[in-house]
Amino acid sequence: MKTLKIAVLPGDGIGPEVMQGALAVLEKVAGQEGFGLDCSTWDVGGAAIDNHGVALPDATKEGCRAAEAILFGSVGGPKWESLPPKEQPERAALLPLRKEFSLFANIRPGLLYPELVQASPLKEERIPQGIDIVCIRELTGGIYFGQPKSTTELEDGDVEAIDTMVYRASEIRRIAEVAAVAARERGGRVCSVDKANVLETSVLWRKTVTEFFAKEYPDLELSHLYVDNAAMQLVSNPNQFDVLFTENMFGDILSDELAVVCGSIGMLASASLGKGENSHGLPFGLYEPAGGSAPDIVGQDKANPCAQILSAAMMLRYSFGETAAADRIENAVKKVVKSGVRTGDIAFGADAVGTHKMVEAIMAEL
Amino acid sequence: MKTLKIAVLPGDGIGPEVMQGALAVLEKVAGQEGFGLDCSTWDVGGAAIDNHGVALPDATKEGCRAAEAILFGSVGGPKWESLPPKEQPERAALLPLRKEFSLFANIRPGLLYPELVQASPLKEERIPQGIDIVCIRELTGGIYFGQPKSTTELEDGDVEAIDTMVYRASEIRRIAEVAAVAARERGGRVCSVDKANVLETSVLWRKTVTEFFAKEYPDLELSHLYVDNAAMQLVSNPNQFDVLFTENMFGDILSDELAVVCGSIGMLASASLGKGENSHGLPFGLYEPAGGSAPDIVGQDKANPCAQILSAAMMLRYSFGETAAADRIENAVKKVVKSGVRTGDIAFGADAVGTHKMVEAIMAEL
Ligand SMILES: CC(C)[C@H](C(=O)O)[C@@H](O)C(=O)O
Ligand SMILES: CC(C)[C@H](C(=O)O)[C@@H](O)C(=O)O
Repeated sequence: MKTLKIAVLPGDGIGPEVMQGALAVLEKVAGQEGFGLDCSTWDVGGAAIDNHGVALPDATKEGCRAAEAILFGSVGGPKWESLPPKEQPERAALLPLRKEFSLFANIRPGLLYPELVQASPLKEERIPQGIDIVCIRELTGGIYFGQPKSTTELEDGDVEAIDTMVYRASEIRRIAEVAAVAARERGGRVCSVDKANVLETSVLWRKTVTEFFAKEYPDLELSHLYVDNAAMQLVSNPNQFDVLFTENMFGDILSDELAVVCGSIGMLASASLGKGENSHGLPFGLYEPAGGSAPDIVGQDKANPCAQILSAAMMLRYSFGETAAADRIENAVKKVVKSGVRTGDIAFGADAVGTHKMVEAIMAEL
Repeated sequence: MKTLKIAVLPGDGIGPEVMQGALAVLEKVAGQEGFGLDCSTWDVGGAAIDNHGVALPDATKEGCRAAEAILFGSVGGPKWESLPPKEQPERAALLPLRKEFSLFANIRPGLLYPELVQASPLKEERIPQGIDIVCIRELTGGIYFGQPKSTTELEDGDVEAIDTMVYRASEIRRIAEVAAVAARERGGRVCSVDKANVLETSVLWRKTVTEFFAKEYPDLELSHLYVDNAAMQLVSNPNQFDVLFTENMFGDILSDELAVVCGSIGMLASASLGKGENSHGLPFGLYEPAGGSAPDIVGQDKANPCAQILSAAMMLRYSFGETAAADRIENAVKKVVKSGVRTGDIAFGADAVGTHKMVEAIMAEL
């Protein structure tokens, strides 16, 4: 039997609660579709700081290396907020994981079901059919990892800090390819976001992307937008986009902006794909909800498990090629939400169910 | 008589049309408040490319140098869109002007009158009283001007591009001061935006800002936000902010996001202040509408002149200390818009007036 080796990193806050639901769903579809699961669970984030002194312990890294995908919960919380920014759980866990596993392609569906338009901060007339776009972010390059990165005391007593944004054409083509593949399966339209009127890296970005699409994907419709304009368009008319793709820092900002425009962050999944191939001939990947650890509702059976469950579906699709199982999960979530069974974050004041009941409802639809 | 020396740069598209209105308003308040105007007009942007081959001719720079403030229209249009990004009128005119006159502080009021909440893409229940915040952007540092900035062919045939983000503590304090002064005149709350969990420049930014406020402005309430979170908060709840301030690139993105959240870009003014003092003991500054040259409505008497007129008011306030005249203009615009006299962009399908009639209505209220 085909077996999926998964490193499970529940993390902090609501992470463990929603992870439990996702694992139950995975187990059921595994039985239905006839594959096996080999899950190992590891500490990460604040929990790992508390138990091992670091947000990403060696054992956790080892556990991930032995697996073929990571199912990640969420990390962080008030307990660790007074740590210096670079030692905070989210940063200290995620950046090394991205680097270690060359997770260069972050895929964030910006999906809002028509039934949930009320959840969006946008006027409903702007998004009558909900929202359905995909944001693809380069995740291992740019100003996040570029060298030099330093702080220096100057002779005149002033202090100077430097960060370096670096991109190579090969890195740009690699992420452009991911965007192109996504667009082919969707509406065939790709919008590349840069700041080519100011940045050298963006001039290279735009040139490389343009040449790459002309040569490899002439059937797709490619457009370009400056990042400041993209930030405006995402709010004024998100559905003008099909696939949006951009470099690391711009993607950090725009994908979060898109998430909030989509209203219910409890519904949003993400995938971060690596460059190699696992034993299934597919990319290693890290799959996590777009939202955070929601410390305010921990342990209250209130968290929306959908984002975690949908992240598990993305994992089945991208790292294991289990398309039928992924479809099964996505359809079940959609059906349950449409039927009106909702956690508090998407109930709009109507009766809400708890995390457990929500998971049960989804399981029943699988 | 006190005379205000102003370099007028109408630019392209609707620039000249709305500039005419702003100059008429300025002339009237000059008579009322008893100061003189010494205006000289210069080509900039696409018009300058057509007439002189460059977006910012030497004569225009000279004209600006001889003045004490620049009243800027807008530049760009389809005619010049096929130029390479760095040669496009907006970029080629604005960046050299910012550098030449050390315009380090960009002030963008995010103001939406309660009467115009319909114009915002946000649900009205999120902004029942409209929006009133200020975004302050560092404008001469960071990745816009940092060196090295280069593109290199590598030996293996790959191409690498580099941009450098640089900040000095002294630069950070200088813009923090502008934010503090603005906050003192408003609600006393400042939110500094950075990415201190990833960038060295942001670590320095946060540390410098924190120390500066503790020492110089302990009466103000200072908070910090990561840029991705700020991009979310601006959409989900803009009025949580009083004064928002950030570095150049983040400010480019966030201030445009704020503008679109405020709905009618035709109402939004901006100031970019320099570091020296003009003969009035106040900063040299460049004042321009937040919106663009709107090529689709050029010459149709449709453009909303308010942003240009309100930019002129900011000029009177910041570069000339003519507070009474500035108040007069701002109150007149507010009164006219509240009374229901509106250009098409803010008429919501009701009867609209043209640019000229709008200017007349404002003049009548001065
Ligand atoms: C925690 C932080 C380093 C990270 C990022 O900026 O990439 C986070 O904001 C994200 O988007 O996953
Ligand atoms: C034209 C461009 C260089 C400029 C910027 O990025 O600063 C513009 O977007 C702005 O915000 O004034």
